[in-house]
Amino acid sequence: MLVNGKQYQTIWLDENDPTIIKFINQNYLPFRFVVDELRTSEDSFCAISEMKVRGAPLIGVTAAFGIYLAALEARNIANPLDYIISFANKLIMARPTAINLKMAVSRQLETIKNNHDGKDLVQTTFKNSLKILNEEKEKCLKIGIQGFPLIEKIAQKNPGQPVRILTHCNAGWLACIDYGTATAPIYIAHDKGIPVHVWIDETRPRNQGARLTAWELRQHGIPHTVIVDNAGGFLMQKGMIDIVIVGTDRTTRSGYVTNKIGTYLKALAASDNNIPFYVAVPSSSIDVSINQPFDEIPIEKRDDDEIRYMEGLLNNEITKVQIMESGSPVSNYGFDITPPRLITGLITDRG
Amino acid sequence: MLVNGKQYQTIWLDENDPTIIKFINQNYLPFRFVVDELRTSEDSFCAISEMKVRGAPLIGVTAAFGIYLAALEARNIANPLDYIISFANKLIMARPTAINLKMAVSRQLETIKNNHDGKDLVQTTFKNSLKILNEEKEKCLKIGIQGFPLIEKIAQKNPGQPVRILTHCNAGWLACIDYGTATAPIYIAHDKGIPVHVWIDETRPRNQGARLTAWELRQHGIPHTVIVDNAGGFLMQKGMIDIVIVGTDRTTRSGYVTNKIGTYLKALAASDNNIPFYVAVPSSSIDVSINQPFDEIPIEKRDDDEIRYMEGLLNNEITKVQIMESGSPVSNYGFDITPPRLITGLITDRG
Repeated sequence: MLVNGKQYQTIWLDENDPTIIKFINQNYLPFRFVVDELRTSEDSFCAISEMKVRGAPLIGVTAAFGIYLAALEARNIANPLDYIISFANKLIMARPTAINLKMAVSRQLETIKNNHDGKDLVQTTFKNSLKILNEEKEKCLKIGIQGFPLIEKIAQKNPGQPVRILTHCNAGWLACIDYGTATAPIYIAHDKGIPVHVWIDETRPRNQGARLTAWELRQHGIPHTVIVDNAGGFLMQKGMIDIVIVGTDRTTRSGYVTNKIGTYLKALAASDNNIPFYVAVPSSSIDVSINQPFDEIPIEKRDDDEIRYMEGLLNNEITKVQIMESGSPVSNYGFDITPPRLITGLITDRG
Repeated sequence: MLVNGKQYQTIWLDENDPTIIKFINQNYLPFRFVVDELRTSEDSFCAISEMKVRGAPLIGVTAAFGIYLAALEARNIANPLDYIISFANKLIMARPTAINLKMAVSRQLETIKNNHDGKDLVQTTFKNSLKILNEEKEKCLKIGIQGFPLIEKIAQKNPGQPVRILTHCNAGWLACIDYGTATAPIYIAHDKGIPVHVWIDETRPRNQGARLTAWELRQHGIPHTVIVDNAGGFLMQKGMIDIVIVGTDRTTRSGYVTNKIGTYLKALAASDNNIPFYVAVPSSSIDVSINQPFDEIPIEKRDDDEIRYMEGLLNNEITKVQIMESGSPVSNYGFDITPPRLITGLITDRG
């Protein structure tokens, strides 16, 4: 998608030197647009563990490139495979809950374990990395194509009026390689000339909506407005929202959607106001093993400091301030579960 | 209620000098506990306009004392009544939307307009101020007594277990003189030895929950936990909340409750999970004139900067940081409207 008028992905190969991987360092967004490089396997570990890259698909691709960089480093080592496996074991611990991280590393290891020639290890891991990258990009594009008619239909009903879409958190291209999941139908509609307006939930505590979704939509020229998480219900009561589209971290076969905390409240409000509520679901986040979602899906409790502190810009420096007393306890569940009765439909890459 | 182990009101007369009014300056909370003084009528204007005092009942009482201070200043002036009326006209503009401000000033003016003797003006406005203060305190205590059985009943069902209450924003004693509205039944239950645990919505954008409600409950020794506004629905799904109690800014005769933005989302979640949802309503906030709440109740759109900036502590100084790009539009509705079908009951000072 566009940044400063130029097409970008979140991660790509250096044009001149395929041993260098470039990526957008998200820790500086939206305040600064910084492109960093992965030159060593350690760089890829740090990019993931320090959250310079975020979002399950992007983390997976970064990890795949990390294994490729380890293979490059292992060229002149007696036991290159040992070196790579040792790094792989460290890498999968960089973000232990991200399923795509483990999957990407496993795919790399699987294809190289039968191949002990140092030179081929590099070629194999390089090709694999690009394959995983292109698959992720393709999945998002397919979600966009599947979801586009939903927006088109609303536009046809109200000619000349922008289609007013609410989204929560960042299920945008910054979490993927390109297009995003929930945002993919929106980008396609916009690029086809259908007027859209996106209401973006701030998404406390980490504010991915206000910081990332607002930034990426603005860069691509898509009209939007940021609201606090408390406001979406009132906008629906006032008839100011046509459709809700969100992403998901894990969706069960029976249609229970685990997504960023607060999604359930918006689904309730959409249902109460007869507004269609859609979830963009990449096939990799469907978990067929779950039968009792509320008992079986582990809901991550995240660091208290995400609630106690807020990061922002002060005198052009990114700074953290303490926004409540340290003596008051806080509780920081990261996700909630939306039951299928509140969901109008899923938008998948498989139709 | 207690602060550092000592009983406080939000505003009170100096023990030794009844021409000095003391009050808690809320601009420093929760980071510093600062008691300031009103020594002149201008002090009372600034306290209200600079939001050192907040909450409709407290603003009303501060304004009443402001008229009393103006009467003191007018003692040696040729036309004391002119002086007071001129100040009153300025004072009611300090926060134009607060109904209690206008009411308190009107009550003061009404009783003194028939009285042109300078000495009596002081006595009259002094007595009136104390009368308004005591009435506000009494109203909150009555709400507490009316609401207490709701908490007591839950405690009796689950002996030894704390009653788990969710509240939104600050409808606490800091907004009133003492007890608060939504918090009054909670303080009474706690003081009677019933174990309670309060889940406090942070309440973006101004964070009155995290900053004020958490502070006042902690000072009074009431167990509590602060959560982001997104989290309440999930806690209800998990059976972690027994009852919701919120305040209101304006409630219609047919039971539509206008309250801080986000209240409607919690009412939806409470209804979806069969959790009782109560609203503490001082009789002064019932508006009998409204028939079409969504058309007739004006919903204040507040300053964009409340969303764009966040105030917190940095190196022991209260500092504001910019938390999103200035180029993205924001929208900041202050209130929403909860329909009566989602409300289990109202707790009023009139039973």
